[in-house]
Amino acid sequence: MASESPVQADGFTAEEQRGLYRAIYSRRDIRTFKSDPIPPEVLARIIRAAHHGPSVGFMQPWDFIIVRDMDVRQQVKGLFDRERQAASSFFDEPRRSHYLSLKLEGILESAVNVCVTCDPTRAEVVLGRNSIQETDLYSTCCAVQNLWLAARAEGVGAGWVSILKQPQLRKILGIPHHVIPVAYLCLGYPVEFPAEPILETAGWRKRMPLEGLVHFDGWEDRSEGGVWEEFKSALSNPTGPTGPTEQN
Amino acid sequence: MASESPVQADGFTAEEQRGLYRAIYSRRDIRTFKSDPIPPEVLARIIRAAHHGPSVGFMQPWDFIIVRDMDVRQQVKGLFDRERQAASSFFDEPRRSHYLSLKLEGILESAVNVCVTCDPTRAEVVLGRNSIQETDLYSTCCAVQNLWLAARAEGVGAGWVSILKQPQLRKILGIPHHVIPVAYLCLGYPVEFPAEPILETAGWRKRMPLEGLVHFDGWEDRSEGGVWEEFKSALSNPTGPTGPTEQN
Repeated sequence: MASESPVQADGFTAEEQRGLYRAIYSRRDIRTFKSDPIPPEVLARIIRAAHHGPSVGFMQPWDFIIVRDMDVRQQVKGLFDRERQAASSFFDEPRRSHYLSLKLEGILESAVNVCVTCDPTRAEVVLGRNSIQETDLYSTCCAVQNLWLAARAEGVGAGWVSILKQPQLRKILGIPHHVIPVAYLCLGYPVEFPAEPILETAGWRKRMPLEGLVHFDGWEDRSEGGVWEEFKSALSNPTGPTGPTEQN
Repeated sequence: MASESPVQADGFTAEEQRGLYRAIYSRRDIRTFKSDPIPPEVLARIIRAAHHGPSVGFMQPWDFIIVRDMDVRQQVKGLFDRERQAASSFFDEPRRSHYLSLKLEGILESAVNVCVTCDPTRAEVVLGRNSIQETDLYSTCCAVQNLWLAARAEGVGAGWVSILKQPQLRKILGIPHHVIPVAYLCLGYPVEFPAEPILETAGWRKRMPLEGLVHFDGWEDRSEGGVWEEFKSALSNPTGPTGPTEQN
C-alpha cells in the first residue's frame, strides 16, 4: 500500500490501514445485545467520531440524543411494533412470515439508544447547499457511518432502526418540528459480530457482484476497451492485506 | 481500549483502532490535487469499501460511475461554474466575495471523478423502507463515507462537489430518470491533507463544541443530575490513544 502511493509523509501503516478496512468489512447491523454497559469514555469516543463527519459548508447539522431511560425506550418500542405490523402488510407470503420472524431491533436490550438528528436551520445560508437542499441530510448520514465504524473498532455493535416514522419519533423525544430525526440507533456489546450480514444469512437478499455496479464515463459504458481492464480485474480479484477475503 | 471491552475474542489492536480514528479525524474535503494517477488496485479497494456500506433491507441501492474522460468532466465543470455563480447571489458582501474566492472543487485536476448514485427501485419491496422512503438515500451516503475513509487510509483525497443539480448531472452522465445522483466526488492524491477543514482555516465556520450537541433522554435534557456526569466529562476531555488531540 504505502509503497504504491505517491503520498509518503503521512502514510498509514499497514496495520492502521487494516484497522480501517476491518471496521468497514466487519461492521454489522446488530440487533442482539449483551447486558454490559458501555463505559462513558468509549461512548464519548464513538459520539466524537460522528461529530467529525463531513458536512456541507461545514454546517455540522447534527445533534445526538442519548436515550437510556426505559420509559422513553418503551414508547419507541411501541412505535416500532406498530410500524413492523404495518410493514408486514406489504409483503406477500411466504415473504411476510419470513419478515415477521426476523429480529430487527434491540431497543430495550441495548446499552443505550442514540437518535442522530439534522437541523436544516443551523446556518442561515449554507455554502454548497443552495442547489440541493438534502445535502444536510447527506452530511448527517456520513456522521452516522463514522459513529457506526468507531463503535465497531471499540467492539460495540450498532443497529439502525429504520422504520420509525419521523413525526411520531419527534413527539416521543420532544424534538422541535424543524429538526429531522435521521437515524435511531441501538448501541451495546453484541452477542457476536456475524461473519455476514444477518439478512444475507437469513436468505433475504445476497450481496450483489460489485462488477455490475461500476460504470465508466457515463451510465452506458463509454470507456474504450482496455483502459479500465486492470481496474476491472482488481475489482474482481482484490489484492493487498486489506482485501475483504481476509476481513470477511 | 481492548482491556475495557467485554468483547475480547475479536478485539481490534490499539494500532488498528488508531487507524480507524486516524482516518476519521484526518479525512478532509480535498480540492487541490497532484497529477499522479491512482493505481487500479487502490481505486478498486476504495470502491469496494463503499460497496460494503450498510443498506436498508440490504438493498445496496448504489452504482458507481467512474469518470476519467475530459470532455465529460468539462461539462460537469461548466455546470459547477454556473451553480457557483448562482450560489454567490445568496450571500451578502463581504460573504459573497469570500465565497467566490474559495476553491471548491478539483473536477479537472483530480485523477478521476466518481458519481455515486441511488436506485430506489433496486428491490421491489424493501425491508425497513416502507415508513421512510429516504432510507435508501441514507444508505448511499453511508457508502460514500466508507469510500471517503478508505481513500484517506490509502493516502487518496476526496472532495464532494455538492452544488451540481441532479437533473443536469443526470443528463451529462446519461443516468436514468429514476436513479438519483447522490454524490459527485473528485479523487486523487492531494497536495496536502490540511490539519483542519479548509472552511475552518478560511474563517468560514468554526467546529461547534460537541457538548452543546448532546442531549439526554430527549431534546430537552431529562437526565437526572449525576447519571451522565462521567460521560459529559469524557466528551470534554477525550481519553485514550484514539483521542482527536493525537489525531489533529
